[in-house]
Amino acid sequence: MQRSELIEQIQLEQSLLCVGLDPDIALLPFGYEKNTSGIKSFLKTVIEASLPYAVAYKPNMAFFEVFGAQGWTLLEEILKMIPKNKFVIADAKRGDIGNTAKKYAEAFFEHLNVDAITINPYMGMDSVKPFLAYKNKWAIVLAATSNPSAGAIQDWQNESGTSVYEEVVRTCSSIGSEENLMYVVGATVTDKLRDIRGIAPNHFLLIPGIGAQGGNLEEVLKIGSTKEGGMLINVGRDILYPPPGKPVNSHVREKASYYQSIMATYLNAQ
Amino acid sequence: MQRSELIEQIQLEQSLLCVGLDPDIALLPFGYEKNTSGIKSFLKTVIEASLPYAVAYKPNMAFFEVFGAQGWTLLEEILKMIPKNKFVIADAKRGDIGNTAKKYAEAFFEHLNVDAITINPYMGMDSVKPFLAYKNKWAIVLAATSNPSAGAIQDWQNESGTSVYEEVVRTCSSIGSEENLMYVVGATVTDKLRDIRGIAPNHFLLIPGIGAQGGNLEEVLKIGSTKEGGMLINVGRDILYPPPGKPVNSHVREKASYYQSIMATYLNAQ
Repeated sequence: MQRSELIEQIQLEQSLLCVGLDPDIALLPFGYEKNTSGIKSFLKTVIEASLPYAVAYKPNMAFFEVFGAQGWTLLEEILKMIPKNKFVIADAKRGDIGNTAKKYAEAFFEHLNVDAITINPYMGMDSVKPFLAYKNKWAIVLAATSNPSAGAIQDWQNESGTSVYEEVVRTCSSIGSEENLMYVVGATVTDKLRDIRGIAPNHFLLIPGIGAQGGNLEEVLKIGSTKEGGMLINVGRDILYPPPGKPVNSHVREKASYYQSIMATYLNAQ
Repeated sequence: MQRSELIEQIQLEQSLLCVGLDPDIALLPFGYEKNTSGIKSFLKTVIEASLPYAVAYKPNMAFFEVFGAQGWTLLEEILKMIPKNKFVIADAKRGDIGNTAKKYAEAFFEHLNVDAITINPYMGMDSVKPFLAYKNKWAIVLAATSNPSAGAIQDWQNESGTSVYEEVVRTCSSIGSEENLMYVVGATVTDKLRDIRGIAPNHFLLIPGIGAQGGNLEEVLKIGSTKEGGMLINVGRDILYPPPGKPVNSHVREKASYYQSIMATYLNAQ
C-alpha cells in the first residue's frame, strides 16, 4: 500500500487503529475449539467486527508458528479475510542479512503479500535494505520498545550522548524514505517518542503497548500524531478477548469503537 | 542436547563442523526439480554425505519460509532426516518479548524440537530469558556479526569504552550459563572473537562466515577453540553447492572432510 492510500484510509475511517492478531489458544473464549480451526473462526469474528474501526491488522508470527506448518496455513487463510484497503503488518521482527534477508522479503512481500514487516536492526542497515527494494511495501524498524530490559541496548549512549535508538532512526532515515520506512516506538516510553518524532517528523510510527500493557493513548496521540495521522496504534489483547460470558463480536466492536473515537478527536483537532 | 553430550560428539567425530542448510532454489544443481520436493532430495543427499564429518546442522529459516506453509512442512521433513546425536540449530534470529518469546520457544523447542535457536538481543534480556527455561535447549545470541554494517549498533561504545556486543555477552552470561547459552561471532571479526573469548572463556560460540564469506578457519580455531572444542563452525554454500557436473554427494563429502580434518588437527593439539 502506498503512503497516500494509507493516509486516505486514515482520514476516511477517522482511525489510527491497528488490531493486533495474537491468537493465544489458552485465551480463546468459551465455545471455540482449542485448535487452529477454533482460532480461525475466532479471528474471523474479530476481523469482521473490527473492520469499521481499524485501518490496519498486525498478525504476530509467533502465535502462528507455534503450530508449525499448520500455523502458516492458518495465517495464509486469515490474510485472505482482510480486505485490500486495510494495511497488513507481519509482526515478524526478522533481522538478517544478504541473501537471507532477501529470502525473508520474498516470503513476506511476495508469498504472504503483506504490506509491511517488522525488522530488528541489530545487524545494521544490511538487515533493512533488502526490504526497501519493494515498491509500496514497508520495513517497520524496531527503535525504542517499552519492555523492562529494552534499555540495555537501545539506550546505550556514546560519548556525545547519542543513544542507539536515535542512531537507528537517523541511519534508517538516510537509506529509506517516508514512503517505505516506519519505526516501532512503545506507548509507555513517551520521552523517546518525542525524541524520535523530532528526528523523523513525517515518518509513520507503529505504537504497541496500548491496552493490556498500560500505555496512555491520549498522551501518545498528543506527542506522536501529525496532520496526516503519522501513527498506527496497535491494540491486541484488550480488543480480542472479552470477559467471560460476553460475545466476541460485541466486545470487539465496543473496544475498537472506543479506541477509534478517541483517535478521531485528535485527527479532527489537527 | 546436553553440553556434555555435545562435547562427547565433538571428541568422537573430531569435528566442530556445523553444516548450514540454506537451500536456494536458484542454486540447486542440475537434475533436481526446482521446487520443495527437489530441495528435499538435495538436502537428503547433503545430510547423508556430511554425517561422518559434521556434529551440527543449521537450517536457515528464511530459505524455508520463502515457501510459506509448504516450506515449514519441508523443514519438518528435513529435521526427521537428521540423527539424534547431531546438534540442530534453527537459524531464526527471533527477538521478541513476553508471551511472544514464549510462543517462539514453544514453536522451536517443542513443535520443531530443535536443540537451539539463534536470538537477536536488541530488545534486551526479556527476549533471551524465555528460551533459557527449557532444559537441554540453547539460546544462541547474536553478539558480533561480520556483515559490512554490523558495527553500526554492535560497536556503539559508551563513555567507558564498552561496546554493545561486549555488553550483550556480559549481560547474557549473567542470566544464563554455559549449559544453555552460546554466542554468534562472525569468522572475519577475529579481534572481537578474541574479546568475546576473554569475557566468556567457556561458552560455546557459533561461528558463521567460513567458506563463501572468506573467514580464515585456522585463525578462528587458534583464537576461539578451547580444550572442549568450544565452537561450532558453520559452513553452508561452500559445502552444499558443487561446481557444474560434479555429483552433490562426492562434493559434500570432500568439502566436509576437508574442513573436519583441519578442525581435528586443532582438537588434537589442545
